[in-house]
Order: sequence, then C-alpha cells, then structure tokens
Amino acid sequence: MNLLQETLAKIKPLDAEVMAKVQARLDSLTKPPGSLGRLEDMVKQFAGVTGVERPEIPRKSMILTAADHGVAHLGVSAYPIETTLQMTRNYVLSKGAVANALSRHCGADLVVVDMGVAGDLSGVPGILQRKIAYGTQNFTAGPAMTREQAVRALETGIAIVNEQVNKGYRLFTVGEMGIGNTTASAAILAAFTGMTAEEVTGRGTGVSDSRMTVKIEAVRKALAINKPDPHDGIDVLSKVGGFELGGLAGIMLGAAARRSLVVLDGFNAGAAALIAHALHPGCKGYIMGSHVSAEQAHQKMIKILGLEPCVDMGLRLGEATGASLVVNFLDAAIKLLQEMATFEDAGVANSVGE
Amino acid sequence: MNLLQETLAKIKPLDAEVMAKVQARLDSLTKPPGSLGRLEDMVKQFAGVTGVERPEIPRKSMILTAADHGVAHLGVSAYPIETTLQMTRNYVLSKGAVANALSRHCGADLVVVDMGVAGDLSGVPGILQRKIAYGTQNFTAGPAMTREQAVRALETGIAIVNEQVNKGYRLFTVGEMGIGNTTASAAILAAFTGMTAEEVTGRGTGVSDSRMTVKIEAVRKALAINKPDPHDGIDVLSKVGGFELGGLAGIMLGAAARRSLVVLDGFNAGAAALIAHALHPGCKGYIMGSHVSAEQAHQKMIKILGLEPCVDMGLRLGEATGASLVVNFLDAAIKLLQEMATFEDAGVANSVGE
Repeated sequence: MNLLQETLAKIKPLDAEVMAKVQARLDSLTKPPGSLGRLEDMVKQFAGVTGVERPEIPRKSMILTAADHGVAHLGVSAYPIETTLQMTRNYVLSKGAVANALSRHCGADLVVVDMGVAGDLSGVPGILQRKIAYGTQNFTAGPAMTREQAVRALETGIAIVNEQVNKGYRLFTVGEMGIGNTTASAAILAAFTGMTAEEVTGRGTGVSDSRMTVKIEAVRKALAINKPDPHDGIDVLSKVGGFELGGLAGIMLGAAARRSLVVLDGFNAGAAALIAHALHPGCKGYIMGSHVSAEQAHQKMIKILGLEPCVDMGLRLGEATGASLVVNFLDAAIKLLQEMATFEDAGVANSVGE
Repeated sequence: MNLLQETLAKIKPLDAEVMAKVQARLDSLTKPPGSLGRLEDMVKQFAGVTGVERPEIPRKSMILTAADHGVAHLGVSAYPIETTLQMTRNYVLSKGAVANALSRHCGADLVVVDMGVAGDLSGVPGILQRKIAYGTQNFTAGPAMTREQAVRALETGIAIVNEQVNKGYRLFTVGEMGIGNTTASAAILAAFTGMTAEEVTGRGTGVSDSRMTVKIEAVRKALAINKPDPHDGIDVLSKVGGFELGGLAGIMLGAAARRSLVVLDGFNAGAAALIAHALHPGCKGYIMGSHVSAEQAHQKMIKILGLEPCVDMGLRLGEATGASLVVNFLDAAIKLLQEMATFEDAGVANSVGE
C-alpha cells in the first residue's frame, strides 16, 4: 500500500463524544447559550479534530506551495510567469510578502515548498525542494501532468504534513503561489460540478476583459480535450490541476489522517479541497472554512464542501490571507473555552427561561 | 458652551491627504492592487482617523458601560434584572466573562463603567463609578430619563474617552451590559427610521415567543407614549434609550473629536451609534463596522450608518465580542502596511496590465 492509500485508510470521523462535552461546557459559561455563534462551532470542531476536550492554542504552520502552469503561456493572468519564481524567492529572502506579514501576525511558522516552479530555486535557502517538474503542461492541449506526477504531488503534501505533525504542529493554514492557477482551479470546479467555463471562471488577480475571454476559452478547451472524470480525484488533478494544488490536497488528506486541522483559504485552496474531498469525503470535517473570496465561483465551491465561512472582505490574493485572519478567531474561541467562568463559579443567575 | 457642544464642534472630516498616501503605498506593495480588499480600507480609515500616514498598532481600550432598564420589569429578557449587577461584578472580580477573555485576546485594557446599574456597586474596586440613577424609568409609561440625564450620560462617555486618549489610547472597542437593552435599542432604531415594532424587535439573548410578544408590545407602547423626535438625538435617548447607550454614544462622539477610532459591536452599540450620528453625522468616519449580529434588524442599522461589516458569525452577546475580533484584522492590516516590501524593493515584476 502506498502513502496515499495508507493515509486515506487512516481518516476517521471527528470525535463526537468530545464535541458533546465541549458543547456542554460552552452552555455552562456566563453567556446566553449559543450567543457566541460560529466561535462555538470553531472550538467544537477543533476539539473534535484533535480529540482533546479542553484544547490548547495549537502550534501553527502556514504551508505555501508554489508551482507554474503551462496554461499561463496563453496569457490568462495579469502577471508574467516569472512572478511565481520571484514571489517564491520573496517569501524566504526579502520576507516582505503578505504571507510573511500574516504568518507572523497569526503566529504560524512559514513553510515554502517548490512543487514545480518553472525556474531554478535549488540554491535558495529556506525553500523545501520538492519540484516535480518545471511547471505543468499546457492543459488546453492535453493533460497538465501524468497520473504518477499527480500521485507524487499528493504524497509530497502528505509527507510534509506528517513531518510537521511530528514536530508538534496541529493547525495548518494553506496557501499557494502559481501564476495561472485560478484557471486550473476553475477547470477543477467545472470538472466536479458540470458548471460551464463562464460560470467557474473569475478575474483572479484582476485580469482585463480581453484576458478574461482567453481564460474562459482555456477552461473550455481544457475540459473538452481532457474530459476529467469527476469520480476520480487523481484524474481531475492530473488533467486540469497543478502541482501546488495537488500538494495542498495532500496536506488536507494528511492533516485529516493525523487529526489536525486545515484552515482553508480562497479559491485555489478550495479547488485543492475538492480534489481531497473526491479522494476521501471524510477529510471535510478536518477543514475549517475562512472567507468568501472575491472570485465569483468561490461561493459554489464552499457550498459543495459544506463550509460556513464567516468572513467576507473581498480578498483575492491567496497566500493564506483569509486563513491567517480566521485562525485568530479560533484562538479566541479556544481562549473563551479555557478562560471563561461558569454561571455557578461566578455567582451569576442563569436564564429564567420561560 | 458645555462639554457636549464643545465636543461636537471639534469633529472634523477624516484626513483625505493621508488616506490617499496610504492607498498609493498599498498599491506599490507586492500584491495585486486591491487584492487585500477590506483590509486595505481598514488601514486607510485608521490613517485618516489619526492623520498618521504609517500608523503603529494602537493602544486599545475596551469600554463596557452597564446600566439597567425600567422596561426589564415587564419581562422582556430571558435573564433576571440582577444579571446586570452580577455580570458587571463578574467583569472586575472573577474576570471570567467573554469581555475579559476577548479584551485580553485583542490586547485591549478593559474599562467597566457603572452608568446606572439598579444596585449598589460603589464598593467594588475596578468599576468606574458614574451612576446616573438606579436604572431608567419604564419607558412604556413615560420617558426613560430626563433630558438632563441624557446629556449627562453623553458627557460621561465623552469625559471617559478624553481621559483615555490622554493616556495614549487611540482605539476603542465598545460594549454594554444591561438586561432589557435590546428593547431600548429596538425602540431607538424605530424612532429614527419609522420602522414598526415588529420590524425592529429581535430575540436579544434568546427570548421565548411569549416574551417576544411582550417585547414587541413594549417597543410599540414606548414609541406611542413618548413620540421621540428623530431629528433630536437627545430626545430619542432620553425617551427610549438607556444610560449605558448614552455613554457609548458619548464615547463615539468623544473619540471622533479626538481623532480616535471606535470599533462598533452589535445591535446595542449600533443603536448608540444612531444617537451619536443624529448629534453629529461626521462621527461616522471615526466608526469602523465589525460584524453583522444575529439580531434581525442589525442589517438595517448598519445600512443607515454606512458601515461594511466583514464578519458574520451569528454573534448575539454584546460585550464588544465582534469588535474584539475585528480589531485583530485592523492590526493585521497595519502590519501589512508596515512590513510588506514594494515590487521595486523585492525585485518582483509588477502587473503586465493589458
């Protein structure tokens, strides 16, 4: 049995008993029952994920996977292909990207992974060297990658998360960098849902009308030529995916197998979650929604995954932006469970009911 | 000229020049323009409020005002009246309330003010003693308070915020405790908008159907008997308001006069903002929205105030819960402005545009 199959076999449901105990505790605290809304759901989910009734603030890891896309050569992005390489260097050298500021802000240690950047990063310290190829193939002319490469991308993500869990990390925010990857994510969403190219394609980093037309056409062609099988997550990943998206899907599966939480980001992380979900629907419980992105089809994606994002800020960046913000809410919820007094302890009268 | 009039005279527009400079800086950073959505608006607003182009993380103060409501004797809440007294003690003695955990979480120093609790708190250390009366009058039978008391409530809030700004605080999260106060807030909203008692009244802390009927009837009677003048904020406050709501409105006006930011909370803080807004519409720029509460009419309130809350978590507690969460986003936005590299510094290619 290979690492992927082993991992899938290890994914179990959340710990319902622990979750019930957390709910009982929440209801005894000095606040009206349920009045903390989604904060209560968050800490309950985290307790169910870890199996710990009174969880501590978890050690956090932000994992950014980077890779290039053959389709980017068609001009589907407002940025040149070399931006992927430059930004990946920026994360570890100038440390001046959004991901740097926000990983520090939310207390996450940053892991940057070259999954398939179309340029040499081998000499750059601080980058995990996991390059599968120098970018995917142009998926408007055939599959983005081979099936073997798709499995390798997934297993790379699993292996990284296994190492991180062994080091004590139990919460992962996930992000990506890859010029052209919202085109791949749009194709993934269409592959799983049967939505049209127009419905799934958005403005990404902010493309012009003319580039938008090219982008929609690229998604349409990718689907027509590759005919990805929605019942086979590996097939979808290999035909219209990306190395960095496969890596993120692997992280989600690996985290679920190790009873750790992944806080989702926007459209690309969502596409990776669709792949993970196709491989094992049980991983959903180990994923926490964060924000609704400005990308038009993100709402649909969230619905399929059954997530309830609580933040809507018009973010459209990736790099785990939304995930980093929402992690702070989970921390707040954990502290509320840890620190609040019960009605009994505080000598405060509880509800008079009817 | 009294303190209220002096304060109103000091409220000026936001610093548009500084805001334009912040936008230019944001557009030079290594991210697609506008891709940080509301985070960009937040730091821009804070810069406009303070007049500082590269703002530091501000010192934060959470101000909780507490007072009782005569109308609570009708049974409009799921909690007994003494809960106000008990929770106000809980904030400073057992320190086990939501407000305690979340003020610590967001780095705010907590100020608890007795504006009119219906019981003796004079011996309790850590409570600011600003009691105007032992609760308001039952406003279904006449005005909640005198016009003089309303002005005193407003000026109490102004004086507190002045002291806090003198100590170096520039950001205020606001919350309240007062059994029955969503009934007052509903009446305030109706007074300003002409909405019906059914439209403005919600479940508050979670009242039963029978209490809900009593609550709606209380709002209807309060409006019919008092006829608050929507063009006179002091009239509305005195007739259907509360001491703690007047205190919060004063804090908002005082903060605007001192170029400091107030992060709004839910329904009750929103009602206080309507009073402040009626007294000086210019205070709006100094208020940041936070969350949409579970209280049904909160959406309408937010619209009047022109706020764009970015969090929807089904919170229905008060105590500055939502404000405390959103403050963390502002901190993140300030750090992004401080810490991010420009395209030029990082040697990253900017957008290729068309």
